[in-house]
Amino acid sequence: MPETPHEKANPEAQHSDSFFTLKWKGDIDGTLLLLDQTLLPHQNVILDLKSPQQVMDAIVKLAVRGAPAIGVAGAYALCLATRDLTNSSDVRVRLKEVAPSVRNCRPTAVNLATMVDRMMNLLNSEAAASLEGQKLRELLFSEASRIEREDQDYCQRIGLAGASVIPNGSTVITHCNAGALATAGSGTALSVVYQAWEEGRRFQVLADETRPLLQGSRITAWELQRKNIPVEVICDGAAGSYFQRGLIDVVITGSDRIASNGDAANKIGTYSLSTLAKAHGIPFYIAAPSTTFDFNIQNGTQIPIEERPEEEIWSVVGKKRPIGNIKYGNPAFDITPASSITGWITEVGIIQPPFEEIR
Amino acid sequence: MPETPHEKANPEAQHSDSFFTLKWKGDIDGTLLLLDQTLLPHQNVILDLKSPQQVMDAIVKLAVRGAPAIGVAGAYALCLATRDLTNSSDVRVRLKEVAPSVRNCRPTAVNLATMVDRMMNLLNSEAAASLEGQKLRELLFSEASRIEREDQDYCQRIGLAGASVIPNGSTVITHCNAGALATAGSGTALSVVYQAWEEGRRFQVLADETRPLLQGSRITAWELQRKNIPVEVICDGAAGSYFQRGLIDVVITGSDRIASNGDAANKIGTYSLSTLAKAHGIPFYIAAPSTTFDFNIQNGTQIPIEERPEEEIWSVVGKKRPIGNIKYGNPAFDITPASSITGWITEVGIIQPPFEEIR
Repeated sequence: MPETPHEKANPEAQHSDSFFTLKWKGDIDGTLLLLDQTLLPHQNVILDLKSPQQVMDAIVKLAVRGAPAIGVAGAYALCLATRDLTNSSDVRVRLKEVAPSVRNCRPTAVNLATMVDRMMNLLNSEAAASLEGQKLRELLFSEASRIEREDQDYCQRIGLAGASVIPNGSTVITHCNAGALATAGSGTALSVVYQAWEEGRRFQVLADETRPLLQGSRITAWELQRKNIPVEVICDGAAGSYFQRGLIDVVITGSDRIASNGDAANKIGTYSLSTLAKAHGIPFYIAAPSTTFDFNIQNGTQIPIEERPEEEIWSVVGKKRPIGNIKYGNPAFDITPASSITGWITEVGIIQPPFEEIR
Repeated sequence: MPETPHEKANPEAQHSDSFFTLKWKGDIDGTLLLLDQTLLPHQNVILDLKSPQQVMDAIVKLAVRGAPAIGVAGAYALCLATRDLTNSSDVRVRLKEVAPSVRNCRPTAVNLATMVDRMMNLLNSEAAASLEGQKLRELLFSEASRIEREDQDYCQRIGLAGASVIPNGSTVITHCNAGALATAGSGTALSVVYQAWEEGRRFQVLADETRPLLQGSRITAWELQRKNIPVEVICDGAAGSYFQRGLIDVVITGSDRIASNGDAANKIGTYSLSTLAKAHGIPFYIAAPSTTFDFNIQNGTQIPIEERPEEEIWSVVGKKRPIGNIKYGNPAFDITPASSITGWITEVGIIQPPFEEIR
């Protein structure tokens, strides 16, 4: 019988103030718990994942999404790969088999590749060379836990670094979800929002609904209302009207990969938002940890852009594909050029190219 | 028993090459047939409307939409108001009662107000002063028919005037639906597309899906595939990425109201598109008949913008409103400034402010 990753819905969690994006359950032989974000906001279902394939499936269908969060999930996926193994050469063989598929199951966010590479570099390091099976597994597991804790720490520091960009009485707009649910911690763009709120400033957030998968409407609005931060959801095409009417003071989004020159990939629609911000002289910030920077590439044209299934577009029109010869284009990300970005809010502060602080 | 405007679905029409937006059925005592556009593309249902209230309901729920089409529907709504009347003073009293509600049931498109005013001006004219009931009704009915025929004629001439802006091998992007289904004829922006195709040039059309009501995905794509014109539907937020990659050559949209200075109201999202076009040096055209110009107002800030129900936004997330204190902003239109518009394609040619040709 195939393993089923679904635990039953947890109705209590829906009304509680705490939730988690992902969490390891048990000891080193445990499993990975994930909140299935595809079902938010109406259902709160925890997936209990036992294999790297189940983690990859969850990543591909966006049950877990957000560059930092899928980096952590990728590291834990490798831990799951070694669950039934006792000797070190089996661990090595299994991880070499599995790592490339985990690394590449979504192409745009660099964090997934970075964290898988970090685990594999450790596996191939001197420190790991002479370890027996169980010790080797412990070394890898503690690295995955460290990746998770680092992400939580980065989130908090991003909030502290960026909070001052949100003035009292202002309106912030964000796109997609760069909140707690995109990370293992409090988020990137939304960590800035949470910290500014924590510091006592009052403001409101406009959330682009973010077609096709509605992460703004489903996830960002859900996160913000739980903290009692005023939030208004608008259609992606409506943002221009709000800029034009002078109703937006600052833009903050996350990013899935930032090139050496500062060009930033983020959810499709971010480039339009940055173009509008620039046309209206409104500051536009990217909030992301140093792990999202890819210094192996020069600029945004080198970032691979994932093209996702066309059903994501036509399914809101009805259960079946509209008749006729109609194409659907569904790039999942776009590139905001560095020239449209006011500052890059990272765990070391608000920085500028060439980002010497984190190279 | 309340009247029901629904005829049964006509599955044959779905596969036929011809369809109609609206059509009067029968003689002066007849009814108004409307294709219910809310059910496209999956269902092809004709409404048979017998009262002005039914026409207003159809306009408000967008069973019929598009500035020129609702102008024609408004004129016929007044004809329906007099169906059971035989003497002229009853006709006058009834129309004075009904006209303001028809005129104002949607605020942004000027055509609805213009055509209701035109009918009422005729009612109050010298030509109508001495007519008995039946003759007065005939006069009004022939005026409504004339409004419909004029719109058909304008559409055709808009196509001829604008076709040359679409080069062979190009990609045109449009927003919402400014096609046959927005008019009594072949459309405004899409009439230009149809005419260019007719003249033998080959190109493709990108259709913004146009949230919240998906007129691009549901209606524009449906119209274009029926004519075998290549069409690709994209999410509204994706247009920026296509501009950035050099994949768009020209933008053509319709308009709901054009001010004296050329500022043009159109479906929410059009302003973003115009800002992107300007940033990329891509020509942006508005296609609209002279009946869409409102020379009583100076600029776009004077155009009333309809705010529509929040359900149009959250209903794609699920059948019930998401929990929590979340606001939804749903302005149905935005204003593209004249400075971002390359040319106004009308029935008298491609013109520029101050539009002396049509004043």
